[in-house]
Amino acid sequence: MPKEVIVLRYGHRHVRDYRVTSHCCLVARAFGADKIEIVGEQDTAIERTVSEMNERWGSGARVEFVGSWNERLAHYNKLGFTSVHLTMYGVPIQDAEKGLAGKDKLLVIIGSQKVEREVYEKSDYNVSITLQPHSEIAALAVFMDRIFDGQELSRIFPKAKIAVEPRNKGKKVRKV
Amino acid sequence: MPKEVIVLRYGHRHVRDYRVTSHCCLVARAFGADKIEIVGEQDTAIERTVSEMNERWGSGARVEFVGSWNERLAHYNKLGFTSVHLTMYGVPIQDAEKGLAGKDKLLVIIGSQKVEREVYEKSDYNVSITLQPHSEIAALAVFMDRIFDGQELSRIFPKAKIAVEPRNKGKKVRKV
Repeated sequence: MPKEVIVLRYGHRHVRDYRVTSHCCLVARAFGADKIEIVGEQDTAIERTVSEMNERWGSGARVEFVGSWNERLAHYNKLGFTSVHLTMYGVPIQDAEKGLAGKDKLLVIIGSQKVEREVYEKSDYNVSITLQPHSEIAALAVFMDRIFDGQELSRIFPKAKIAVEPRNKGKKVRKV
Repeated sequence: MPKEVIVLRYGHRHVRDYRVTSHCCLVARAFGADKIEIVGEQDTAIERTVSEMNERWGSGARVEFVGSWNERLAHYNKLGFTSVHLTMYGVPIQDAEKGLAGKDKLLVIIGSQKVEREVYEKSDYNVSITLQPHSEIAALAVFMDRIFDGQELSRIFPKAKIAVEPRNKGKKVRKV
């Protein structure tokens, strides 16, 4: 199981992609990524959404805006990360997951509509979650669930102010 | 494994929710739902997105706009469906999945920001995918992946015009 997972969101367009990129960030955090990097213009609304979540629901991944995916990929390569680009054109997750779960450090790249050819070429792995077009948010979640073998589902987030008390009917939140 | 899965998208707001609801629909289709019902005003852009996908990538779930979640829940109850509302407040999927995978017919309800208390009460199950706030798109994908035990990942869609040829580098699509 990887000890460190960085999620790199590529192709974010300011304002237009706010909701989809927010979903990506919240999924990365909830499923146990260590950090989220977004390539693009700084968007304080997204940073605020994620940091409010960390404040209330416990300390998880934080967001950083970065200038170039290429520079980040080179940076993480030097640190010994294996890079995995999630795309419907890649190798099926069910074939790749055993190998990837054995890596210590993963850089998971998720794109939006337009992804440059170079991302496919420079990533160590291109991995698909189904061979159909759908959603980078969904792809990220299923990837994380499989790489962490479901252990992320019961993850405890430190320094939480509130936490859910699971139940089959109604909503219950307790102070921590 | 369920023989029939209907996804009911609750709380869709016209225009504002277009992208998130589209992601929900594409995930439902890609992960093998039989039909998607959206509660709300008819939105031809969403219908078009999904039907174009079915046209090119193979015949999967289609979208229908419906008037009331309550009426649909009653309808599917009569047909013997078990209803499952995905929510961070519910019973963890890892505890619920064995029981649910044994059901023949599932109605999977996914909400947006505002979900009425009645949805929690009237659903047979409320199920969480992690106990953290994140994304209904991600929750739906992980739920489907677990209920179908990964078999949806290699699903063949009939009448496809094109299909992906998976590879670790580059993109390859063939005519079917």
